[in-house]
Parts: sequence; C-alpha cells; structure tokens
Amino acid sequence: MTAIEITAPGGPEVLRATTRPVPTPGPGEVLLRVEAAGVNRPDALQRAGAYPPPKGASDIPGLEVAGEVVAVGDGVTRWQLGDRVTALVTGGGYAEYCAVPEGSALPFPDGYDAVKAASLPETFFTVWSNVFDRAGLRAGERFLVHGGTSGIGTTAIQLAKAFGATVYTTAGSDEKCAVCRGLGADLAVNYRSEDFVAAVKAASEGKGADVILDMVGGSYIARNHEAAAIEGRIVQIAFLQGSKVEVDFTRLMLKRLVHTGSTLRAREPDFKAAIARELEGKVWPLLSAGSVAPVIDTVLPLADAAEAHRLLEADHVGKIILVPGAP
Amino acid sequence: MTAIEITAPGGPEVLRATTRPVPTPGPGEVLLRVEAAGVNRPDALQRAGAYPPPKGASDIPGLEVAGEVVAVGDGVTRWQLGDRVTALVTGGGYAEYCAVPEGSALPFPDGYDAVKAASLPETFFTVWSNVFDRAGLRAGERFLVHGGTSGIGTTAIQLAKAFGATVYTTAGSDEKCAVCRGLGADLAVNYRSEDFVAAVKAASEGKGADVILDMVGGSYIARNHEAAAIEGRIVQIAFLQGSKVEVDFTRLMLKRLVHTGSTLRAREPDFKAAIARELEGKVWPLLSAGSVAPVIDTVLPLADAAEAHRLLEADHVGKIILVPGAP
Repeated sequence: MTAIEITAPGGPEVLRATTRPVPTPGPGEVLLRVEAAGVNRPDALQRAGAYPPPKGASDIPGLEVAGEVVAVGDGVTRWQLGDRVTALVTGGGYAEYCAVPEGSALPFPDGYDAVKAASLPETFFTVWSNVFDRAGLRAGERFLVHGGTSGIGTTAIQLAKAFGATVYTTAGSDEKCAVCRGLGADLAVNYRSEDFVAAVKAASEGKGADVILDMVGGSYIARNHEAAAIEGRIVQIAFLQGSKVEVDFTRLMLKRLVHTGSTLRAREPDFKAAIARELEGKVWPLLSAGSVAPVIDTVLPLADAAEAHRLLEADHVGKIILVPGAP
Repeated sequence: MTAIEITAPGGPEVLRATTRPVPTPGPGEVLLRVEAAGVNRPDALQRAGAYPPPKGASDIPGLEVAGEVVAVGDGVTRWQLGDRVTALVTGGGYAEYCAVPEGSALPFPDGYDAVKAASLPETFFTVWSNVFDRAGLRAGERFLVHGGTSGIGTTAIQLAKAFGATVYTTAGSDEKCAVCRGLGADLAVNYRSEDFVAAVKAASEGKGADVILDMVGGSYIARNHEAAAIEGRIVQIAFLQGSKVEVDFTRLMLKRLVHTGSTLRAREPDFKAAIARELEGKVWPLLSAGSVAPVIDTVLPLADAAEAHRLLEADHVGKIILVPGAP
C-alpha cells in the first residue's frame, strides 16, 4: 500500500510517499481501507521529531481515519466486513489501509461521507475527555477555549454551546473571530489587538471563566490563572508557546483553581473505548441532526501530505483532511 | 477583657497585651470564655503585615479557641450556656472572650481538656477539607505531606494513616523524622540530607505520591510535580518559600496531575459548618478513642504571645497553645 512516512525529523518536506505492507489487524482490531485521514497538530510535532509515537504505535503519522472494514481480527464483536467507521488511532493514518482498535471506532453520523467522518475523532475525543470529563463543564458555566478556529477550537465552541455553556474564545484575526461567533461563541477575542483576560472579565461581570481549555501555554498559563473564576478548572492539552514559564501560584491557591492537563494518544484502549461510547450516546446524535458539525478547511490527496502540513502550520480554519487515491 | 493586639506590622515583639471590650455574639454566634487558644502560621503572617484579616474579622489574631459558652446570640440552636466547645474563628482568638459562629464549633472529644481541644480546629479543618475533600485521598493511596512536625503535618500524617493511606513526609532533622515515624509515617525524609523526590520514588516502586499537601512552595512546586504519581493531586495551602517560580508544565500534562490549592479563613460560614459536621462524624470518634491525637509542643500564658510566635518561627514539634489567665 501507499503510505506517507517521515524520512527524517524536519519540516513538511520530510513527508514522502512510500510503499508499506498492508497491516494485519491484531486481536480486537479491524482493518480499514482508508477513505479519509485527518491531519492534526501532533502529526506536525511528530514530523519535527518532538513527539515520538508511543510504544507499539506505527511510525506512519496520522491519528484518525474513516473508511470501510475490510478485515476483522480475533475477538471483534461489533464491526463486520463492509461497515464504514471512523476511528481514533495511535498512528498509521496517512495510508491506504490502517488497523484500528474496535473500541476506538464509531459509526458515521447520519448523512456523513468519509471526509466529514474522518474529521471527527481526534478533536471530539480530545474535547469530550478534557472539557466534559476532566474539567466537568456544566450547563450555565462560562467556558474559554483558545485557538477558536483550530480543529480543537471549532469543536470545543460548538460542543460547549450545545451543552449549555457560555463560550469565550480567542483567535488571531477579526475574520477568524467572526467565524468563531458564527459557530456560537458568545465572545471572540482577537488576541493580536485585545487582552483576553480583560475581555473575559468584562464579559463575565468580573467573574472569569469556569473552565479553560488551553493548548498555547507560555505566557497564557499565568493569564489563564487571571482569567479563571473562583474554583475554575484549566486543562492543558499542548504548549504551542512553550511549557517552561514563571508563574505566581498565589492565584491558584486564593481562587482555588484546578490546573490539570492530559494527552490522549498513549492512553489505554479501554479509556478510549469509554470515550467513544460517551460520544456515540451524547454527541453523535447532535452530529446526525446537524446541530454540531465539523469545520473543514481543505481536502487534499494523501500524496500532498507535505502541503497539508504547510497549511496546518500556516493559516487555516478547521480541519485538513487527506484522501488516499485522489488524483 | 485582656487581648493581644498587633501594635504594628513586625516581629514577635509587636504583639502586646491590651484591654478590649468583651465581644457581643451576633446572630448565629456564641460567646466563649476562652480557656485556650491555638497559635498558627497565619497568625505570624498577619503579625508581619502579610495576611490582613478578611472583611468583618477581628484585628486580634487567633484562629482557634476552646472554652465555655457564656452567651448565646439570636438563632443559635445547638449550643447552650455552659457547653464547652472548640471552634474555628476568622480572628480574635488571642483574648479572654471570643465570639464564634455556632456552625464552626464542635464539642470537646471525650476526655479532652481545653488545651487539647483548642489545638484541633485550624489543622483538622485544613487537613480534612484539603486532603480528603479537595484532593479526595482514598484508602490504599500514597500521601506526601511536607513539614511533618508542624501542626498541619502531625495532623495530616495521623489522619491519612487512620484512613488507610501510605504516608510519606519531610522534616528538617533526623529527630523530627523519628517523631513523624512515631505518628505513623511510613517514610520520613530529612530534607536537609536527602532528596525527597528520589526517596518518595524509591519508596513507591517508582510510582510517586497520589496526593501531596504542600505549604512550602518555591522549589518544591516543580519537585512535587516530579514526586507525584500519574493522576496525582497536589494541594497548595501556603508558600513558606515563595509563590513565584519557574515550572515546566510538561509533567502536569503528561502525568495528568491536578494542581490546586485553597485557603480556609475567608470561606463562608456554611462551608466551615459542613467541614465541622464531617469532622464530628468521621474524625471526632478517632480523637475520643485516642487513635488520633493532637501533638502539643508548648503551652504558654496568653500574655506570652510574643514568645509563642518566636517558638512558632523557630523550632517546634506540633502545636503551641496560649492560655488566658495563666500566671
């Protein structure tokens, strides 16, 4: 099969098409003929050499795929040949075939094609497990997500809104802020021209945000402590601006903040299966009904993975998807 | 009545005996004739000018008192004249009389005198609400508390042990470490001669501590992140070594730590009443049975408050108690 490999740590140009054997599904896995694969930030970190795949994972990048089940491993109970599913994987997504754990797979929402379906797992698993499970966002609370037009951002804005939160977000241009408001954000702050701490305080009668989802880190860590409400929960899922900073922890104590974080990729399959079942029960109906929808920036042929990474690291709104076999 | 006031921000010598009117108990309060008053770290911070009393609190220091109910305010239902109680207060403890909210008061445990009873509220409310409520310490988990021979430390070691945790602690001498082990600590690390991170890792098969109670801050913040287990919870209740430090937050994310904190003094009376009821149900029976007991370092006359503060800031093991009317 054709797959995209990382020939050496480096920029987008190190991604090259190669030929690899079709994977054999292990016990509890199904083999998908990949119809579409999502491109995510961690793929770019892995390409740059900053995020090695966890033990046992493929060296091929790609954390989410959608396609048809073409082989079934031992012990698989739910999926059959011919089913079309979308799944979270620990790697191997940039390829024509990919083995996926049956528990990490979900059916396509009603009316979805493979491109839309492949855009779901990474951001929906991440947002659900961090914002709703870890931080316990409740209806009526105030939620702040940074990077509002990223895959994570567009998903978090819509889900938090769908479950009854007031939603604040940050983005890097007035145009992007308008997109965020279109997705339901009550407040979108252009971080290049405005201080998000002041804006969040002003929008919340000085109270601040009950839950903050942050992938920026750096100077945002102390500012998140400032922008958080009493008993606010801050969840760190990445550090695009760095992880090593000076912080005055007095606010954490006086406001009784909870600062936590998580990564998804190396978690055990049972954990991912539990999230998948929550998503299927609580979120897939919203996708099928169209009240929440993925935002797709660009669809490219699998062979153009390098171009996809250039786009990921430059300007985009929503998801970038690769399609094997496309011209 | 005689009370000890802070004549100006400064060292122990600024504490001076003065004469003040006997307080009138407000609605929901009882007036105690103080038989004993506990001395705590926050009193020294307040004396130094670094911890102003919350709005509505007395300017007289002292956060815990035990004595006899000699007047009852409107709406008080539980306590009657002649009852002897021990109570957490927002200030005013270093005095012959003190008004206390009825919900923050508890009966003396069986066989307790006023000195032992007065040594309980500040540390037991603090340890219970932070270690068991906020951090959710469970039987079988590993618990690390710094400052093992402080009032907080001696209380935390015993309570964590009584509720089935494995207990690690730090202290500043081999003699103090021996005291900690005598109180039930499974491991006591002399932080002057040994690295607590390595010691905790070695004692836990490399796993680390599930819950850490920290009042040190400073360089301990990053080291607590190191010493914590996967999904470890770290609760910050003070910053004896400072609150502003550089930390690499990568560990917080990768280990899915929860870093939180709290202070007790400014919390609403209902919150304190809820802790009091939990303590009365779950901890007071252990005190009455003698399986958990306060550690008392020194008892001094109220007039010697300055000497009590010198002791507090120098070498002591357990609580320092002031007794009004003593010679």
